[in-house]
Formats: sequence, C-alpha cells, structure tokens
Amino acid sequence: MNTIRNSIGREIPASVPGRKILPFKGAFASPPTGRIHARPIKHCRPGENKLLGSIEEAIKKTGLSDGMTISFHHHFRNGDKVGNMVVDAIAELGIKDITIAPSSMFPVHDRMLEHIKNGVITRIEGGSVRSEIGKAVSRGLLDIPVTVRTHGGRQRAIEAGEVHIDVAFLGAPTADPQGNANGVYGKSACGPLGFVWADYMYADKVVIITDNLVEYPATPISIPQSHVDYVVEVKSIGDPAGILDSATKITSDPEKLEIARHVVEVMEVLGLLKDGFSFQAGAGGISLGVVKYLNESLADKKAQASFAMGGITGPIVDMLHQGTLRTILDAQAFDLEAVRSLEEDMGRHVEVSHYLFGNPHTRGNIVNMMDASFLGATEVDVDFNVNVNTFSNGYLLKPSGGHPDAAAGSRVTFITVPIVRKKFPVVRKRVTSVTTPGETVDVIVTDRGIAINPKNHWIVKALEGTHLPIVDIHELQREAYDITGGEPEIHTGDRFIGLIEYRDGTIIDAVRNVVE
Amino acid sequence: MNTIRNSIGREIPASVPGRKILPFKGAFASPPTGRIHARPIKHCRPGENKLLGSIEEAIKKTGLSDGMTISFHHHFRNGDKVGNMVVDAIAELGIKDITIAPSSMFPVHDRMLEHIKNGVITRIEGGSVRSEIGKAVSRGLLDIPVTVRTHGGRQRAIEAGEVHIDVAFLGAPTADPQGNANGVYGKSACGPLGFVWADYMYADKVVIITDNLVEYPATPISIPQSHVDYVVEVKSIGDPAGILDSATKITSDPEKLEIARHVVEVMEVLGLLKDGFSFQAGAGGISLGVVKYLNESLADKKAQASFAMGGITGPIVDMLHQGTLRTILDAQAFDLEAVRSLEEDMGRHVEVSHYLFGNPHTRGNIVNMMDASFLGATEVDVDFNVNVNTFSNGYLLKPSGGHPDAAAGSRVTFITVPIVRKKFPVVRKRVTSVTTPGETVDVIVTDRGIAINPKNHWIVKALEGTHLPIVDIHELQREAYDITGGEPEIHTGDRFIGLIEYRDGTIIDAVRNVVE
Repeated sequence: MNTIRNSIGREIPASVPGRKILPFKGAFASPPTGRIHARPIKHCRPGENKLLGSIEEAIKKTGLSDGMTISFHHHFRNGDKVGNMVVDAIAELGIKDITIAPSSMFPVHDRMLEHIKNGVITRIEGGSVRSEIGKAVSRGLLDIPVTVRTHGGRQRAIEAGEVHIDVAFLGAPTADPQGNANGVYGKSACGPLGFVWADYMYADKVVIITDNLVEYPATPISIPQSHVDYVVEVKSIGDPAGILDSATKITSDPEKLEIARHVVEVMEVLGLLKDGFSFQAGAGGISLGVVKYLNESLADKKAQASFAMGGITGPIVDMLHQGTLRTILDAQAFDLEAVRSLEEDMGRHVEVSHYLFGNPHTRGNIVNMMDASFLGATEVDVDFNVNVNTFSNGYLLKPSGGHPDAAAGSRVTFITVPIVRKKFPVVRKRVTSVTTPGETVDVIVTDRGIAINPKNHWIVKALEGTHLPIVDIHELQREAYDITGGEPEIHTGDRFIGLIEYRDGTIIDAVRNVVE
Repeated sequence: MNTIRNSIGREIPASVPGRKILPFKGAFASPPTGRIHARPIKHCRPGENKLLGSIEEAIKKTGLSDGMTISFHHHFRNGDKVGNMVVDAIAELGIKDITIAPSSMFPVHDRMLEHIKNGVITRIEGGSVRSEIGKAVSRGLLDIPVTVRTHGGRQRAIEAGEVHIDVAFLGAPTADPQGNANGVYGKSACGPLGFVWADYMYADKVVIITDNLVEYPATPISIPQSHVDYVVEVKSIGDPAGILDSATKITSDPEKLEIARHVVEVMEVLGLLKDGFSFQAGAGGISLGVVKYLNESLADKKAQASFAMGGITGPIVDMLHQGTLRTILDAQAFDLEAVRSLEEDMGRHVEVSHYLFGNPHTRGNIVNMMDASFLGATEVDVDFNVNVNTFSNGYLLKPSGGHPDAAAGSRVTFITVPIVRKKFPVVRKRVTSVTTPGETVDVIVTDRGIAINPKNHWIVKALEGTHLPIVDIHELQREAYDITGGEPEIHTGDRFIGLIEYRDGTIIDAVRNVVE
C-alpha cells in the first residue's frame, strides 16, 4: 500500500476510497478553501402533517436506500436507544451498504456489530468507535478505514460536505409535532443538544425521534422546525440511567488530587486566576479536582471567572451558584445537576452547539477564547503529542471528543496524567497514535512532576525558580519505562483500519489492524 | 417594454436586468427547486483580533468595492444610525455602484437619497422603501426597479442566493469583541434580532457595529461569533426615541373598537377561542383592540392561548403575565414592555428569527401554525387582494412586512379596515397593487360590516344565521365608492419602478412610475 508521512512523521495511507487524504501539516497550517455544502431547499404547506407512525415509515418517507449515509448523536451516551432502533429498522427493510456517521458510539451500540457483519452497515464516518465494534474494526472487519473526528471537526466536515448525510435521525427528549425540539425537558432529558447543529443544518432529510411529544411550540428551540422533515414518537429514546451520571465525583486518590493541585498552582504562577478567567474541564476525577481548587482560589480572591465551557458537571454549576463563575457555555451535560441548571439558571447557563464550541473553519469559536483547559490522556510522548484514541495494545477504542479542539484553542493546555497505568508507560517516546499534536499542548502535570513544552517560552520562564516540581519530559518518560520495562510490543498488520482526522480535515495519524 | 400577466391578472415586466422574473401562480403553486447558497468557508486563529477602529476600517478590511451589495437591518426603525453611517463611509471612500439590501428602510434613511443621486447607491433590493426615497423611486430615480420583499421572503431570497450579500453591516445593542451579539441589553436595546438570520448565515462578510461592547461572552447569543468577521464600536447605533414606542396604545375610536370586537366575535363563532389558540397581532390600534377583547374572552373561559407570534407589544406581554397566554415567539419588539419581557420572562418569551417566522421554503415555519392573524391594509378589493405597499396615489411607500407571510400561514386571516379613509375608498374593485393575494385572506372586518371570502366555505357556513353583520364584499365596495366618488385617478408612466415579490420569489405585482 502507498503511504505518506505527515508533518509530525506519522505514516498514513496515500489514498482511501471515497475521500481525499490531506496530510496533517500543523495545527493551523491548512486554512480552508471552498464553500459550505449546499443542501436542497425544501418547503412545507400549512397543515402538513409531519408526525409519522413509526421509524420504518420515516425511513420509507425519507427515501433512504442502499448506499446512503445516516447520522445520529450521542447525547444519550450509553443509554441511547435511537441508533439501534434505526439500524434495526433499516435492516428489517432490507436496506444495505449504509454508512453511519454518528457523533460518537457507546458500548450500547455493540448490537450494531451484527449489522456490520451482515452488510447493512459497510462504513463508519465518526465520531468514533468503542467497545466490541471498536475491537472488531481494529481487527480489520471493515474494508474501508473508520474515520475518527473531533467534536469541532465533525461539524466542520459536515458543513464542508465531506461527510454528506442523507438522513439524520435525531433523538429529542422533548419535541412538538412540527419538530421543534430540545433536551431540557422529558424523561430522557439530556440537557443541551450541542452535537446536532451540522446534522440538522446540512442533512438532506431530518427525522426527530422523541418520547415526549408536547404541544406546539416546544421551547427552548434547540432544533427548529424549519429544518425538520418528520417527527416520530416512540415509547423510549433512552435509558436515563445510561444517559447521565447521577453525580460526577471528584477523585479521592491523594496522588490524583496532588496533580489537580499542581494544575491550579501553575495557573496561579502564570497569573491566570483572576477576574475574567475562562476554562474547560472534563468530567474525570482529576478535572473535577482542578475545578474544586480553582473555585477555592477564586473565592479566596473574591474573583469571578468569566465562563466555563463544557461538558458541564455539578461542580461547575456550584461555581455558578457560588458566584465564582459568571456564565456557563454548555454543549453537553454530564450529570443531572447540569441538566437541571440549564433550565433553572437560564440566562447564565447557555446552550451552545459544538459548531460554536470548536469548529475551526468558522470566524471564531469558543475554544479560541479559553484561558485554560484541563484534559486527560491515554498516552503522551516526549514531543507532547497526546493519544486518546488507541489503547496501548493498538486497539482503536476511544473518541477524540473535544480534546484536539480545546487544546488548539486554549491559551494554556494542561494534560493531567499519572506516568504509569497498570503495566503501561503513559509518558512515552512515541504515542501509539496521535490525537492532539504536541504544538497545542503546554503543560503535562503528572504524579512525578510537571513537564513544560519547551516551545512555550513564556510558561517555561514564568515557572523558573518556583517551588513547583518542574521536570524534563524525557525524565518522566525514562522513569515510566524504568517502572514498566518500556513500551509493550504491538502486533499490527499491513492494513489501515482507522484514520484519525484532525479538526481541520487533515489526517494526523492512521491506525493499522491489530494481529493477535 | 415586454410585459406578462401573472395568475391574478397583474401586469409585470417580462425581464429585469440581473434577476429572473417568475410570475406569481398562486400562494403555494411554485415549490422550490435548487439548493441553498454556498457561502465561502472561513477561519479564525486563536488570539485573532476582530475589533476594528472604525466603520471605514471595516469597509476596507472586508474588501468592499464598486458594484457590491451590502445589507443592514431595521430593528432600530426610525432611530437607526447604522445604515446612514455605513453609506456615508462608503461614499467617503469613493466606492460607488452599490446595491443596498436592507430588511426595511425608514424616513431616517432619507439622507441616503443624496448617495442615490450621486451614484454611490444604484440599486435597492429590499426589504422596502419609504418616505422621500420611496417618492423619488416612485418618480423614476433608479434605472432598475426596487424589489420589495416580505419578512419571510427576504430570508428565503438570501438563502437561495437570489440576493447575494457581499457585506452585512449589523447593528447590535450588545456585542463582545468576538462578535457574539444580542438586542436584549444596552442603551439601544431593541429586543430580538429576528431580521438578521439570513444576513449573518449567508453574507460573504459580516460586520457587527455596536455601542455596547461587553466582556466575552455576550449572552444571549442572537448572532454567534462563528459567523462574524469584524466588530466595530461606535458611540451610538440608534436613537432610543426612534427605536421603540414607549407604549403601544389601543385605539379609542369607537368605530375601530367595534371592528376589533367583531373580529373576536367571529373567532368566537368559529370556535377558535379555546385552550391552545394561537395568533399574530400587529402594533396598530385596532390589532391591540383585538388583543384586549381576546384576552378578556380567554380569561372569562379560564382558557390559555398557546402562543402569540410578534411583532410583540405590551398588551401581548400582559396576556403572558395574566396567564391567558403560554408562550411568546418574538422576532421583533415594538415597545419597551416587550423588550423588558424578553429578558424578564426568559423561557416563556422566546426570541426567534424571521426565517423561522415565515420563510416559506423551509420544512415549516411559525406562521403555518397560527390559528388567526389580525392584519391591517391600505386597500382591499372584491377579490380579497390586499395592498399595503402603494398609497392610493400610486406611490410605493410601504413595506410588505410579515403581511403576506402571516396571511398565507394562518388558518383564518382577518383584515381590519374602515371602508373609507380621508377621500379614498379602502374597499375597491381593484387594489392599486397586490401585496397579499386574496386566496390567503378569509375575513375582512370593516366599520360597515364583515365580508367573508366565498372560497372559504367553512367560515361562510359557520357565520350563516348569526347576529353578525355579514355583507357581500361588493356591497362594501359600492358603499365606499358612493361616499368617495370612486377610485382616484392615478397618472403613471411606462416604466416599472418597483417589483412586489411574493414570499416564494415570484412577482405578484409591479409598480409603474408616477407622473405628476
């Protein structure tokens, strides 16, 4: 197979059927050309009924047929029922050779494996793959590599027409018969519907699937009726237990808390912790620890952060209520407290799309305005590259999420990791695959010290001579290898099973099939 | 000149430079073909400064040059300063042959007349013209006819690429340095920014002009930073006294109140006044009278209307507060009470765009869901056609506004008029020009009786044998002619100076030059 190397030395296929391959050149080195996708113009007469009796009827009405592409979102996470219902119905109708273009997939979607094996689904344009589907794909199940995309990058790819969606099937916790929809109310409430913007704006057809059909008009209007072709009411679109954590929790592990404390201490030294500070924190235990210390520091100073971007969790909502945070910008809720706050704190807790969050090919996005982001990693390397997609055994099992978007936009990007997990080194000479390029990563805070990207001179200088345990990234790597005996061997074949698309549409890495 | 006749017998030019002429065929007889306008894809690096020092600088940065098209909105109504500032700056820079594509124009914009005469502005793609510009255009000032569009139709035309905007200059009462903007806060607060959706979505370049630059992020986000190229801060974008009426007022004229009472009585007989009723009312004295009686009727029944669509006024807000109305959908505020309510009643008073309000070439809009609309008219005729564009002397001086949109969508469209105004018959054999086709008009309520469109059988039947003064439209016309001596003579020339574009893009009428 013909391969090429991109600007960070990663080997990628020179060509893949049905798509252009542009090698990664640098985080901001490939400005866009061209125009947005021109979807068909539609109409709707007064009195037209959009409400259909079943998903099957919707599939027929939309004209979905062999070879087409469908999409769905992952706001219901591991509680999602929509993706499986739709694919089951497609299979039952005898339609095949479908491309799925979800915003992400969860273990609950393992049920689709059967439909991949029997030819109903022949291509995955993510989003991401996880769990059994991820394993099967990693072993070479699909002829064409899966494309993994960032949250912002998926919005970009759809707007640019690179991912063309024939029919978007969008689960909505609340909708009216004309298709105005939101995630704030209903038994399957998930909070914002940030992932669906590009889907409803650019898909040829849009179907809303709801288990809470309400009187017109359903407000807030996260999805507007103007862009919805049909509405289907079903008994249940999601299992509430799988949609949200009832409460996200701060880590109690003292070593992890120490990492969190170090992040806040670095921000303190850098002069970030003052009125107008802005940040993104994930839902992981360390991130929530950072939020806790951050909150305490701002409260001590009687300072107020300007905004937090999410994935939003209870601890962020607490900051809003305590007055250490002015505004929450929320594209995805991670727990019940965040969902409740989206309604109760309306005006200060504002729903936004992932388009606005992180699409790099717009005239600006929220990540560009963040002072700091606190992100995790599966692996980091001595070039500060981060891998969150593949496990250290080579399997492609995790989404890029908003990681590369937040890292590219934030003024200071922190990665919080232990240097070793189980028997594997986390800090390495070379990550198994690159999700986020090192040029966008500034500070790696570990349980064995803090490494600063030497390219970021002002941070290096600011931290010189402080009490903080600054170390060279190579030292952390050597220590990790000493503990674990070095990088495990991975057995890969000669095929590419996954493309890791950077947010700008270039290929930052490719994943080969695992041979066991 | 070659002319053709459309389906309602109106003579229109067969061709006009720079645009297609499609004759009107019927309110829903011309379904769309084609695709949305594919605007260029852009980008913005973190740290990029969008804030420019002046409108001149913005004009230079956007590359605006001879022959291009600019747009601005009319949310500041007769208090607007943005349109004049921008055109003055364009003139000063020596740029000429500009097309202006505003959502509407007011007397305050008469100052642009000088720039039309000196060749800076050579074409008007409305929106509308009013006042001195309307008079000069009516007398034949421009070589190419002005196009008048409905609120929904303008959104459609821009989305379809029929009106291509090179640079949109959008006044915003509140904005942050990245261009997130709203009309809720600031000294020039105007409430919703419903007119700008298509402008910011499809213009090649978007410039926000604000007199209230706030810290990032400005929320609510009516215009998102993702679509804004540059931001300019100026001292004042509008004169508050001209932007809003301090309070809209119900008519005190007993004859007009009688008209309002009759509208509500007809709705009562038609069985509309119950839980879930939905409506649109304008800001005129009769419309507000209808709202008053409507409110009383619903309160008596302990019923609640589902939604009111606006232009929103204080009396509608009162209904929300009194519990006779569940939700306000608001694209434009007409008074201070409406602006205040948009903030204070957040969640129940919901900002929407004119795209969602009435663009006919979408998969549904709000007008399609209205049970009733109460609209005014300059003239009506025996075919139930309505004219709101031209005065009875032939001058093109008034906008179509949302009139044709509301009439086409509403289940029952009421026109409220006296049969005579000053010396002119309002009910006529043939309106001076057609804004809204008779097929979309159901009931004309006048001071001399109520005429029902005979095509609408269920209404005719429902009102048979009631106490209401039902009359034949021809009787009203004869009575009006008896009082006034008939239609005044209009002296027109052989040139077309205006095209009245129906919401679907077809030409429903054309206006000839006035000769005095």
